[in-house]
This record gives sequence, structure tokens and C-alpha cells, in this order.
Amino acid sequence: MYIEKIDSPADLKKLSGKELDTLSNELRQTLLKKLSEHGGHIGPNLGMVEASVALHYVFNSPIDKIVFDVSHQSYVHKMLTGRKDAFIYPEKYDEVSGYSEPNESEHDFFVIGHTSTSVSLATGLAKARDLKGDKENIIAVIGDGSLSGGEAYEGLNNAAELGSNIIIVVNDNQMSIAENHGGLYKNLQLLRKTRGEAERNFFKTFGLDYLYVNDGNDVHALIDAFNKVKNINHPIVVHINTVKGKGYRFAEENKEMFHAGGPFDLATGKMNYNFYDDKSYMGLTANYLLDKMKEDKTVVTITSGVPLFNSERRKLAGRQYIDVGIAEEHAVAMSSAIAANGCKPVYGVMSTFIQRTYDQLSQDLCINNNPALILVFMASVTSMNDVTHLGVFDIPLLGNIPNMVYLAPTSKEEYFAMAEWGIKQTSHPVAIRIPTNGVISTGEIFNEDFGQLNRYKITKKGSKVAILGLGSFYQLGESVVEKLKNDANIDATLINPRYITGVDTAVLEDLKKDHELVVTLEDGVLNGGFGEKIARFYGPTTMKVLNFGIKKKFIDRYSVDDVLKENHLTAPQIVDDIFKIL
Amino acid sequence: MYIEKIDSPADLKKLSGKELDTLSNELRQTLLKKLSEHGGHIGPNLGMVEASVALHYVFNSPIDKIVFDVSHQSYVHKMLTGRKDAFIYPEKYDEVSGYSEPNESEHDFFVIGHTSTSVSLATGLAKARDLKGDKENIIAVIGDGSLSGGEAYEGLNNAAELGSNIIIVVNDNQMSIAENHGGLYKNLQLLRKTRGEAERNFFKTFGLDYLYVNDGNDVHALIDAFNKVKNINHPIVVHINTVKGKGYRFAEENKEMFHAGGPFDLATGKMNYNFYDDKSYMGLTANYLLDKMKEDKTVVTITSGVPLFNSERRKLAGRQYIDVGIAEEHAVAMSSAIAANGCKPVYGVMSTFIQRTYDQLSQDLCINNNPALILVFMASVTSMNDVTHLGVFDIPLLGNIPNMVYLAPTSKEEYFAMAEWGIKQTSHPVAIRIPTNGVISTGEIFNEDFGQLNRYKITKKGSKVAILGLGSFYQLGESVVEKLKNDANIDATLINPRYITGVDTAVLEDLKKDHELVVTLEDGVLNGGFGEKIARFYGPTTMKVLNFGIKKKFIDRYSVDDVLKENHLTAPQIVDDIFKIL
Repeated sequence: MYIEKIDSPADLKKLSGKELDTLSNELRQTLLKKLSEHGGHIGPNLGMVEASVALHYVFNSPIDKIVFDVSHQSYVHKMLTGRKDAFIYPEKYDEVSGYSEPNESEHDFFVIGHTSTSVSLATGLAKARDLKGDKENIIAVIGDGSLSGGEAYEGLNNAAELGSNIIIVVNDNQMSIAENHGGLYKNLQLLRKTRGEAERNFFKTFGLDYLYVNDGNDVHALIDAFNKVKNINHPIVVHINTVKGKGYRFAEENKEMFHAGGPFDLATGKMNYNFYDDKSYMGLTANYLLDKMKEDKTVVTITSGVPLFNSERRKLAGRQYIDVGIAEEHAVAMSSAIAANGCKPVYGVMSTFIQRTYDQLSQDLCINNNPALILVFMASVTSMNDVTHLGVFDIPLLGNIPNMVYLAPTSKEEYFAMAEWGIKQTSHPVAIRIPTNGVISTGEIFNEDFGQLNRYKITKKGSKVAILGLGSFYQLGESVVEKLKNDANIDATLINPRYITGVDTAVLEDLKKDHELVVTLEDGVLNGGFGEKIARFYGPTTMKVLNFGIKKKFIDRYSVDDVLKENHLTAPQIVDDIFKIL
Repeated sequence: MYIEKIDSPADLKKLSGKELDTLSNELRQTLLKKLSEHGGHIGPNLGMVEASVALHYVFNSPIDKIVFDVSHQSYVHKMLTGRKDAFIYPEKYDEVSGYSEPNESEHDFFVIGHTSTSVSLATGLAKARDLKGDKENIIAVIGDGSLSGGEAYEGLNNAAELGSNIIIVVNDNQMSIAENHGGLYKNLQLLRKTRGEAERNFFKTFGLDYLYVNDGNDVHALIDAFNKVKNINHPIVVHINTVKGKGYRFAEENKEMFHAGGPFDLATGKMNYNFYDDKSYMGLTANYLLDKMKEDKTVVTITSGVPLFNSERRKLAGRQYIDVGIAEEHAVAMSSAIAANGCKPVYGVMSTFIQRTYDQLSQDLCINNNPALILVFMASVTSMNDVTHLGVFDIPLLGNIPNMVYLAPTSKEEYFAMAEWGIKQTSHPVAIRIPTNGVISTGEIFNEDFGQLNRYKITKKGSKVAILGLGSFYQLGESVVEKLKNDANIDATLINPRYITGVDTAVLEDLKKDHELVVTLEDGVLNGGFGEKIARFYGPTTMKVLNFGIKKKFIDRYSVDDVLKENHLTAPQIVDDIFKIL
């Protein structure tokens, strides 16, 4: 196979035109085999096979620098830059990350995982090149979906002013994770329809030069185009029309399902799991919201690129479901305004992406104190383990904004009681940190007014030691209490704090009477988190406090068990640490 | 005067065409008098006089809803909606805020102060209207400068999909605070030149309808235009060409100086102060950076809409000064990439605006660990006191991101030593929280390698009580130490922590020997801040800890002295609180 002989782009450049076609086919089959066995981003990479080959055939990486947006489409780039073995040999599958990674290769310039940043990053590389008097090509690759994020626009707007070489490859596969939303996409459609000839051209309005490639999966057409723009002395957009999932029937037919996931059965296209499983919090939430929206036409579900509903549910929800594209800032501001005008917005978002909209949370939502509800998914050290997708920073981010009520339920019943209150109430911006340790049903019935803010719930009254088990770590608290009883006959108090954003001073004061140690457990980074507030509260007193959580550190592709152990987040370790204090 | 008879828009609607001209003139003169005596946003409001009159003449506020971007141009709107007295009578000047404020009037829908949000907010109001089956007009007013922010684009992209009434008034005065930057502005120029006829039209690429008004300071032309779009059944942009500072010669001639400020001499246009005073940290920093850039062509200063250099210095800096527009996300990503490609970016930004780019700080900068330097200005409870411009949230925001080194200098010499190190070093993303308590020169000479992270500096060794005075509050720490000595003969230890982002465990361990109380002082919100980390460190020990800082709360137009007192941030209060513990 040709693929086995490609150790660097130099080897690629030796191939003939026909050999490039064969190589592209090999790359696609190799990708498919790994993805079906291992999982990963499927459609984006299948669509980028030929463009990746053409980029490396024409340009001189790593002198010329290619920046991939999100970089979930950089697998073929990796295969062509010395990392093919991690795609060919199952035992080496995990030797590469799913995103670009400078530690793997000199051909990667940034660790990237969030959207809409490649043009800005490329503009910075180009600016530095110009200051140094260098001459290399700087290439940004960005998908049509990623163009919905504001930073992509800021990048285009500024790239247009650069006055020197920058090549922006717009990989237009006509999809985000789900379908695209926004006026821009009609313009891209017009450009595809007119083969780039339409005078009404989003990119040209910035003064950017523009080149259209109709068959973005034809390696020869792409090589021609890239040769035309190589060493250009001004900014240009190369708009390539590609097919998401290209070359794999099931992925072409069901682009949304095959955006990412797997493993899957290569022959039948059957995925081994269902993201929208009705028994998961994602599925339960979607069904709950569908019911709410049916009974109340002012309830509206908002998402930003990562669909909370599958396509069937989206149809059922109709105009009460809005996908704003990968535009978290817009989603939050819009939610605030929907609430201000008397309706009931529910914005569903992952922990790793809520951090893209701090200013809107603070300014548009919380200063205005509008009653929008935000559902935060995958907020946990046990969720995604790529360094770019960690779910452990949302507590410092959301938890320190005035007026925000950030809730941490510990069971299915508590979660939906909080959601019910969050939708109904009109006094606060509310966010709920959805548990991540499985759907735990307690059968408990809630009649509580969560508007009585910051009332912690004492679930077991004991003495000497009190355990505050927050959200997903409440059950860990149960284990600690049990072990304290078994190992040392200590009747510890167990508390479900419920409110991340407030301190229950009455409960904490009361603990002073017959407790000497308060322990906090939180499924997130310690710095700026929940536990530190408890430590501050008891700072001037003799009460001792032990905060358990995750150390402030970027961790990547980790074993959850290892990280839990490193951070002393197992019941035996916690109990040991408690004994050291007592 | 007509102005005295306007208690609501209904009174305005009774006026004849000619009377509207007279009223506009009165409004402008009233504005000028107040602004010259009181200060505020000058140019933006002078340019919006006629548009504000026309909007309220045509539309039916508050049923029809007008959302102002930034809302620094909403003064005339306030004068027309029952708040004229606060502009006419000096003793009532402070009865209105400088931004829109629902607590003042039913004609205001949001507290706004940051940029680029009005289209998103208006889209939310419109969506709620549609869900409820209402029919009012929703109007967003946004300036050309604000269009440089990504959220404005996200808003336009989504507004285009709304399928119902939304009127986006683009107030094009051809300026941001300073001149605009970005390719978009050439398109706006083309549209003005062609009186809106050019086929290459940024707004139309989203599928938005479009109407151009060449004389945006002609109340009759504006009334005609607004009458045309009133009750329209789809999204439309009304692009109005206005003059920033209209009707006041000095403001028209020096648009940047007269963006905001004052008081000033109405007759001569002489401002009573100079923002770029060479003796302020702003001026000192600009001169320092100019020198650095002269000696090293790879140093580059980046700003985002709020100029760090005045126009003369910008000319001197040439291509080593970049203003990216109000695009903080782009600024951070670009800075990271400039550093990645071997140059030395210095990004200057205000505390209140750094929060617009958390995700890029975390992902593009800190995960990649690139050595960009960020200078954070006005980070203090003593800086701006509008609720939308508070400078007290940057510590929780920046201080809890892994890899970030956030420094808090306590003097001029220490600041520039840190800046010098920050530019030279290549190991960390570094931010510096520039002091806000005046330029304090100690004459101290620094030869320190700040790369030896998290080493607190013990400036006075004592016992019993240790004071950690962070940054601008170091001198408060000095006062506390002095008072402890004078009042109770306590020889307290004084520490300059310098590193916001780290805990000096060696120094803190050592304090255990002969101290019983550690006090932290920080000029920011307590929640998620510096002091809580010290409280967490000592949580499991017998050391007592007292954290002083600002309570988590949105505060607006406050007296600094009052807020300091409320938060026990005066030396006598702190000493009292210490005595209560000892």
C-alpha cells in the first residue's frame, strides 16, 4: 500500500496523479476501519481526505503552517505527517489524540478542540511571520458549521486587514453536527449553486479574495486550486464543496449520526450506542421538555450546535426548539431576552462549551436577573477526557457570578423537581448541573420551593464529621459516611448542599456545636470552586475543613480511575485523609 | 422650550415637522450642557439625536421595544421617555445611569454596557413575541463599531432566520472609540458611497432586507425610513449614516477624544483631564511598550477597541500596534498564535472586558501554554462603578485557569519588572493586574526571575498575625500592620503574594510556627478569588484565616468609600475584625 510508505509530506509529493487517487482511497479505508473499531469523528474526516492530501501535496508543511478549526477533521493530516501507524495498527490507535497536538508532531501548531478559532490563530501566525520577515504560507481550515461562531467572523474581519498571505480554506460540507442554522448558510448555498460566481458573497464583503472549488473531494481539482493560491500576497478564501461522510454510504445518508461516535459495524452502519438513549439524562431531559412545551407554548428549548434533541424530537418541538448554531453567546443573550419578554427559555449546553459565553452570562443574563434556565450537561471529571473538552471548570465559571442560582441535584427526582421550579419561577437566572454518575432514582417526592435559596439539606444527622457531597459526588459522600461508621464507628453527618452558588450559614453555624471537621466533595476543579467557600466561611473559627475535588491542571486523555485516585477521590482515600485530621 | 413638555413619546408625536427640528436642536444643546458639566458619552449621543427622535415619533414604545447596543447612545431616548429632568437640571444629573436601565423606565428593557449584544437580545424579544402571538415591532440599534464583535454577527446570522419582524438600525458614524478596523468597514464605506445600492452588501449576504438612509441626522428622512419599515413582517437592516459628535465642532473634529469623557469647557472644547496622562499607568505603559517595540521588532501591542495608545503613539508604533476592533476573542487567540510563531505579543485590556474571552484564554492560550503577555487595566473596586463595567471579577476568571500566571504588582518598579519578565520569558501565558491605587514608586530595584513561580515575598517578618496584601491592596496591608503595632503592639508579618494564581506552600507552612491568624486582602470579589485558596490551604489546620475582599453582588454607581466600608476594607475595620478573632 502507498500509505505505508508515507512518513512525511515529502513522500506524498513523490506520487503521481493516479497514485494520489489510490492513496486517497487507502486513507479512506484505513480511516473507516479504525473509526469502526475505535470511534472518533467520522463524517468530518471522510469529507476531508482529498483536501488533506492536496494541502500536503501543494504546501510545504511544517514551514507552511496549516491550522485546523476544532481539528476534529485532522486525522488524514495526521496520517500524512508521520502518524499513520496510529490509524493502521489497532494496538497503536491511542497513540494520537483526536485533535491537533504539537506534542505529537511539528506539523501541528495548536491543541484545539473548540470551534471557530482557526482564522484568528492563523492571523496571529501570519502576523508573526510578517514581523519576522518570513515568507511561508499560512493556511486556516474551517468548516461551514464553525462559521456560525462569532470568533470566526472576528477572524475573517481581521484577516482581511492583514495585507499579506493567508489562505482560508472553507470546508463546506453543508452540515454542522446537525443541520446548519443562520442566514449565512443561504449565502453558502447560493455560492455553491452559482459555482462561486454570485456577486452576493459573504467573504467578498470583507474584501477577501475568493476561489471556489466545486468538487472538494477531487484531489486534482484541489491541487489545482491550492497551486493557484500558494504564495499569494494577500488574504484569500478557498471555498471547497465537500461531502460529509464521503465514500461511506451510511455516513453520507445519516450525516448527523455519523458526525462522531462509534465503534460501529462497518458492514451495516449500526452504531453500538445511542447518544439519545431514552434512559440517559439527555433522553429523559428531551422527553421532559417535549412534554413541557406541549402543555405551555411559551416554553422554548435552545441549543447551540450540539443538539439536545434528535431529529424526530426536533420535528415534534417545531418552533419551540431553536438551534442557533455554534453561537453560545447569542444563545445566552437570546435566552435572557426571551425570558425578559415573558416566555420560558431552557438552554441546554455542555459544561465545556458554557465557558464560551461568560460575558453574556454575567452581563446579559445575571445583571438583568432574567429567569432563564440553563441545563449543563457533562459537567464532571468522568465525562469527556480530552484536554479541550474537560467538564470541570463550570463551577468557578458560573458559580461566582452574582444573581446566578446554580443547582446540583443528586438524583433523577431532584433534578426534575429543580427543572420544574427553574422553568416556573420568575425571579432568578438558574442553571442546573446535571448529574453524571448514571440516572439514580430514589423515588423521593419533592414539594420544595427552591426559591428559598441556599438551604442545604441534611440527609443524615450525625456528629464530629460532616460531609457535604455536591451533585454527582453526593453518592461518594454516602460511601464515605458508611465507611466512617464501619471503620471507626463515627456517625458522620451527610449533607446535600444543592446550591453551588450559596452558603447555608445557618446549617454551617449549627455544625459548629458538635462537629470538628467539615469535608466537601465536588466533581470539578477545586480552585474557585464550591469547597473553598466553605473553607472561607470557617476560616476564622476552629472548625477544620477538608476540600476534595480536582487539582487545577490541564489533564488529557486520562484514565478516570487514575485521576480520581491522584486527587484522593475514592472513599478509602477520603476516609484516610479524615483520620489524619481527627 | 418643547423639551420641557415631553414627558413621554406621546407628547413627541403631537409635534409638527418643524417643531421636531427645534426639539432636536434643544435636545442637542441640553445634552451638551450636561455633558460639559458632568461628563459622559459625548459623540455617540450627539450623533443619535435625530434618530432617537424619529424612532420615538414613529414607533410606539414601550409596546414596540427598542434595544440599544452598549446603550451609551441612549441619552436622548432617556430624555424622550420621561427622564428629561436628569439632563436639564444639574441637581438631577445623577438620577439616571449612563446606560439603559429598566429600573428607570418601562422604555428600557435591559441593563447593558458591553458591546455587540443588541441584535441577539432583540432576537430573543422577537422570538418571545412570536411565541405569545403578539405583534409589536422589535428594534435593535447597533453602532458600526459594535459590529466588530462576534456576537453581533451571531445575532445577525440568527435574526435572518427569525422569519418575522425585527428592525436592526445600524448607526454608522464611521468610528469605534478610535477608528474602525476590519474588512467589514470597507463594505460599509462602499455602501455609504453607493447610497446603499452596491450589490456587495454585508447585510444582504445573510438574506436580511436592507434600507439605506444617507442623512442619518435628518429627522425627516429618518421618519420616512422608519415609517417604511414599521410593522414589516421580516427582518430588515436600516443603515443610517450619522456623524459622531454631530453639531458640536470640537467633537466632530476630534471624534476619538470626544467619544466619552469630560467635564469639558463648552466654549473651547478643552477636556479637564487626559486619559493618556504620561504619569498614569496607561501613559507609562504606552511609553514603555513603545521603547520595547523600538528595540525589538518582534514585540507587538494588541488592543481590542479601547485604545492603549493615543493616535500619536499609534503612528509611532506602526505595524507593531494592532487594534482588532471590539473583538477580545480574536485578540486572545491571535496573541497566542503570535507567541507560538516566535514573536512577543502584549495584549492590553480592561478588567471588565477580559471576561468577554474566557474560552480563548483557557483553550487557545493556556492549554497551548503560549507566552503571551496580558496587561489588565482598571481591575479594582475603585475603577469604574457602573454595574456593567465592574473591575472585580477578573481574579475568579483568570485566576483559576491552569497554566496562567497572573501577577499582582504593588509598585511601579515591580510592575515594570514583571512586564519585562513577561515579555522576555517563553514558558507561560502571563497576565499582570496593573495597580489602581495611583502610581507608587518605591525606588526598589528588581533582579528577580519571576519564572520561579508562586514565591511570595515577605516584606516584614513578624509573628502572631500575617497579612497577605495582594496588588493594589498591599498598601492597605501596610496600614493594617502599622495599626496593629500602634493599637496592640502586635508585630505582624506583611507579605506581598505577587502570584494570584499560586500558593506559596513553603511560606504558608512556615507561618504555622509562630502565627495564629492569616489575613488576606484582595481588591476583587471574594468568591473564587485569591483569599479562598489560602483558606483552603489552612482548612485542615488550626491556623485561622480571615479573607477580605468584595462580596459577590452586582453593585451600581456606588460610592467607593461606602463599598469599602460595607466590605470592611478600611484599616480600622480590618484591625477590629482581627481583634475579634485573636
